[in-house]
Amino acid sequence: MEIYKLQEEIALFAAERDWEKFHTVKNLVLALVGEAGELASVVQWLENVDKNFLESNEKIREELADELADVFIYLLRIADVAGIDITKAAQDKMQKNTNRYTIEKSFGNAEKQ
Amino acid sequence: MEIYKLQEEIALFAAERDWEKFHTVKNLVLALVGEAGELASVVQWLENVDKNFLESNEKIREELADELADVFIYLLRIADVAGIDITKAAQDKMQKNTNRYTIEKSFGNAEKQ
Amino acid sequence: MEIYKLQEEIALFAAERDWEKFHTVKNLVLALVGEAGELASVVQWLENVDKNFLESNEKIREELADELADVFIYLLRIADVAGIDITKAAQDKMQKNTNRYTIEKSFGNAEKQ
Amino acid sequence: MEIYKLQEEIALFAAERDWEKFHTVKNLVLALVGEAGELASVVQWLENVDKNFLESNEKIREELADELADVFIYLLRIADVAGIDITKAAQDKMQKNTNRYTIEKSFGNAEKQ
Repeated sequence: MEIYKLQEEIALFAAERDWEKFHTVKNLVLALVGEAGELASVVQWLENVDKNFLESNEKIREELADELADVFIYLLRIADVAGIDITKAAQDKMQKNTNRYTIEKSFGNAEKQ
Repeated sequence: MEIYKLQEEIALFAAERDWEKFHTVKNLVLALVGEAGELASVVQWLENVDKNFLESNEKIREELADELADVFIYLLRIADVAGIDITKAAQDKMQKNTNRYTIEKSFGNAEKQ
Repeated sequence: MEIYKLQEEIALFAAERDWEKFHTVKNLVLALVGEAGELASVVQWLENVDKNFLESNEKIREELADELADVFIYLLRIADVAGIDITKAAQDKMQKNTNRYTIEKSFGNAEKQ
Repeated sequence: MEIYKLQEEIALFAAERDWEKFHTVKNLVLALVGEAGELASVVQWLENVDKNFLESNEKIREELADELADVFIYLLRIADVAGIDITKAAQDKMQKNTNRYTIEKSFGNAEKQ
């Protein structure tokens, strides 16, 4: 599915409920932060959250998927409201990261450059 | 651009730098939270962050795009590492939201249901 | 009440429940982030959250107090587990801020220095 | 040092810089979230952040103290602006937690009750 289709669906969802008045960028950032916090609380006490663990813990896998989805939905909504092309922004950022974290400097260490 | 292409690019970026060892789900959630925090700090003291404001404040617009991109990149990476289809998760969540926040109950108010 | 008394109470609470094994610094940071997210979700759609508003909205006032308390409890717990004197750290930081944000440079504007 | 003294110092710092206009509860929550994000980014790629590690890594110990201080300062400022007694709120919350997470139910497991 294309990103913009999902954004249209989210915009329609908000419009149908007269929620556009709530959806300022600042309010939506607070909402995204709330969902990022729920994502953190899913994993906070777990030791090892990898594919193996998740395959045998369907309940946690679903909670994780649910919270990732919530962060994604608010992220797409913020980008839409702010008039920012999120896919292009991500591609631009990957290009910057490639220049900033060269393989020579960054191989095996993730220190800020 | 398709989501999975961006995820492949991010995965390659990590592999080339031997960063896969850092990219556990818990570490990546901490990283996403760090970027969500930077997103919050872009807008924290601003009064009105709408399209008009952003069109005449290119510097802030770029900072916002940059931080949205960072959250997006970590979100896609977590989904990839966890084996979760983020687009499907978002569609499932929108369906749940449609059932939970019916237009009758939620028109004009955003209270949790 | 003294800070260290509250820290002792929190430490005892964890010890009595055999929760010390969960309370690594990284896990506790994820937990603090979860509570900061709940704090954000209390205010996300509200227009004006000042003393007047809170005095006439006891339910929201209690939710806010509750989430501030949760962030505080995890903050004190992290400092304790990490062996950091949080009061001294705050005083040191206020001193740094005083040097960094001089009244001349920062009067009326909150830009990063 | 008493909590309220630190709050007075922070209030004076803001007043002297004419920053009270920025310090609405919502703006301060965004600021706290920004600092919680910086706290997360200090520990995100580290394996083991315990007292031993911190005693032999002074630079990380200082970064951690610095970010804990920033979260603390904004927490105290929010409580002050909102007219909430943060120490009393924390004591009330510990009492609630004691009732909710009884030793019988919660010994050795940190599941939400």
